[in-house]
This record gives sequence, C-alpha cells and structure tokens, in this order.
Amino acid sequence: MSVAERLSTMGIVLPSPTALALYRPAVRAGSLVFVSGQLPLRDGAVLHRGRLGAGVSVEQGREAARAAAVNALGAAHALLGSLEAARVVRAVGYVACAPAFVDQPAVVNGASELLRDVFGEERGIGARLALGVASLPLNAPVELELILEMD
Amino acid sequence: MSVAERLSTMGIVLPSPTALALYRPAVRAGSLVFVSGQLPLRDGAVLHRGRLGAGVSVEQGREAARAAAVNALGAAHALLGSLEAARVVRAVGYVACAPAFVDQPAVVNGASELLRDVFGEERGIGARLALGVASLPLNAPVELELILEMD
Amino acid sequence: MSVAERLSTMGIVLPSPTALALYRPAVRAGSLVFVSGQLPLRDGAVLHRGRLGAGVSVEQGREAARAAAVNALGAAHALLGSLEAARVVRAVGYVACAPAFVDQPAVVNGASELLRDVFGEERGIGARLALGVASLPLNAPVELELILEMD
Repeated sequence: MSVAERLSTMGIVLPSPTALALYRPAVRAGSLVFVSGQLPLRDGAVLHRGRLGAGVSVEQGREAARAAAVNALGAAHALLGSLEAARVVRAVGYVACAPAFVDQPAVVNGASELLRDVFGEERGIGARLALGVASLPLNAPVELELILEMD
Repeated sequence: MSVAERLSTMGIVLPSPTALALYRPAVRAGSLVFVSGQLPLRDGAVLHRGRLGAGVSVEQGREAARAAAVNALGAAHALLGSLEAARVVRAVGYVACAPAFVDQPAVVNGASELLRDVFGEERGIGARLALGVASLPLNAPVELELILEMD
Repeated sequence: MSVAERLSTMGIVLPSPTALALYRPAVRAGSLVFVSGQLPLRDGAVLHRGRLGAGVSVEQGREAARAAAVNALGAAHALLGSLEAARVVRAVGYVACAPAFVDQPAVVNGASELLRDVFGEERGIGARLALGVASLPLNAPVELELILEMD
C-alpha cells in the first residue's frame, strides 16, 4: 500500500500547516527534511493541555503525541507534495511533565505507532528520543520533532 | 545586501567563539553545519540569569535569545570564514522556565528575528522548535542550537 | 591506534543494543548516522537513578553520561559493523535535574571524554549541547544523543 492509501484507510486527512512568520513548518536540506516542532493541535485547539504526572494521563499523552505526528506529516506533505518517497530518520518526543513522571516512552509511542502505521515497519521506524521537559508552548503536553529522508 | 553588510548595518560584530576542550563551537558535515548550543554570553557574562516565569521577563528572554543567536553566528563564521553561502535549516530555542511558563515562542522569536534580519526572509527562516527546560548551564535563561546549510 | 584498539585498551566491550519495537537504535541517512537517545543502562539496570541537584552527584552523573556514551557506540557499531570510519558530529546530553542545578556541562563531560578517548581528539570532539530537563525515562539521570559522520 502507498502512504496515501494507508492514510486514507486510517481515516487521516493531513492538515495544512499554519502559516507562520518566523519559522517554516518544514525545510529540506539535501535529502533530509527537517520538520518544525509540532504541537497536538486539532481544529486550532491544543489537545489535553497540561503536564504528564500533573493532571494529564498517559493515554491522553499518547493521543496528543499521535495528533502531533499527524501535524508533522501535514507539514512535510505541504512541503514535498507527497510522502511516498520519505522515510523516518529521527523522531523526538518532548513530554511536558512533573519531575516524578518517568514514562515518556509510553507517551511518545503514540507518535511512533502512527508513523509505523503510515509508512510501514521498514520506513516508518527511525531513531528516537523521549524526553521530559519543564513545559511547552500553549501548555501543550507533547511536542514532536521529525527528520525524514527522501529516496 | 550581503550578510556582512547586514551585520554591519545592524552594528553587530560577531564574537570569536570561546576555545573549549571537549567540544567544538561548530562542525561541518557535508553541506550541513552543526553549531553547538550557545548561551547568551556577552563580554563573558550571561545575560539575565535565571528562568522565565521565575524572575526573568519575556523581554529579557528575547534579548538573551538574540544574544545567543549572535554567538551562534560567531561560531559558524569562525568555522566557515564567511556566512554568505549559508542558510538557516533548523533553530532550537531551549528556554529555562518554571512549569507554568508556556510562552517559549515569544522568547525564541528574539533569535528568529535576528536570523531573519541577518540572512533575509528567504534564507534566514528555517524549521524551529521552542522548548521549556528545567535549567541551563551557568543559569542561562536560553540556549540556542542552529543547523545551517551551505550552498 | 584504531578505534577497536582504543576500546580494547580501555577495557570497553560495546554492548549490543536492545531490540525495540518502535524505534531503531541507530539509523543511517547518507553519510550521517543518527543514534537514538541512550540511557545509562548497564547490565539492564539504570545507573544512579534520579536527578542531579536532587540526590545524584555530579560524579555519579558523569559516570552515567559515560555509560550512555558507551551504549551509543554500541548502537552505532551494531548498525555499521565498525566505527573506524566514523567521527563525532554532534552530541547532546540531557541531564535530569532540579531547577537550581546549572552544571550540566560537568556531567556531559563524562560522555565527551569517553568519545574523545575512543575516537581521538581530531575525530572524537564534535558540536555539543548540555541541557537540563525535567525527567527522563526509567528515572535515568542522563540521556545521550549522538550524530556521527562516516568518511
């Protein structure tokens, strides 16, 4: 199946990235595509505002990470026109959390599973970091960064 | 205008990066230039020590982010000899902050505006992340990372 | 001396990376190798769990950073088969810490010294960031990220 077919089967319509003054949603440099940090915005609102270990549950965090990954793909698609030639090189999940929260990987899996399902096992699983940060813009629980490589 | 002319017009003299034992201020790999995390050092002192949301104001944070960006350009210039063939691919602003502070983008804009003014809209605006972290070296309010691409 | 000889002289046996479902220990893209975030795991246990400035000492943090760097080399070696053609481009040390802790560089030096000793001064010292984060997976005190370049 193509990436477009998988997205369609999953019922995902990639959003257009918001036009922003001081950064670009995604930038290509040679065969690499650097996607800007994506928040779990859906219809203009941040999903599950707050921090893990301080009101936001792991399941909510996973859902937010998945939404951020969808936005990352929307940003890449808007730049590239197609995701068929892309594969995931590196994903970083920044999880806003209280110091006692140490299950960042379970949260970031929400993004990693989405990427695997969209690109397949061979091309959708890259290097990864899962980090706990003090806070994120708009009080988002997760921010996702992506680097893709084009064939 | 060239980058050198813009810097001159803005009254910016790029600082020489401090010689350091265990890392290099900037490293080139192919057409990419990875600049080490830069603190808002000016004349050897950190601007506006502390954290956003805990004593440091957004305006002070913006000024610190701008100073860190100047240092990042100094590190890149020392490696490359000239910034004329460079463009901004990715900038990351790490903002030391209290958990309740969620306006990292306003702080990081201080760096993004400087980069846009120095390189111009076409080449000075790249992908970006704005993150809130627990604390930074020397109690700096901001640390800036930059990846450039050479023509 | 070759990298293999240096590792042998230092008494370091590179560990095999743990097989993981949703990310790869390391991914090559062109001449760059992106290594996933590495924790200071040794024999399956995290060294010195906790945070700097909240129970974990700088010396323990350094030891943890060194262990994470050894794991990063293990991940790269498993992908590449040999580290002889590799050099360090960028290392990022994420230090879990209390907000008052601001000596992240001393902690990350534990990784930087290891990399310098393994690859030599010319090829083992790259760009670097030292950051203080809220918390890390498994309550680890340090997570290390590495980008290598192949000749």
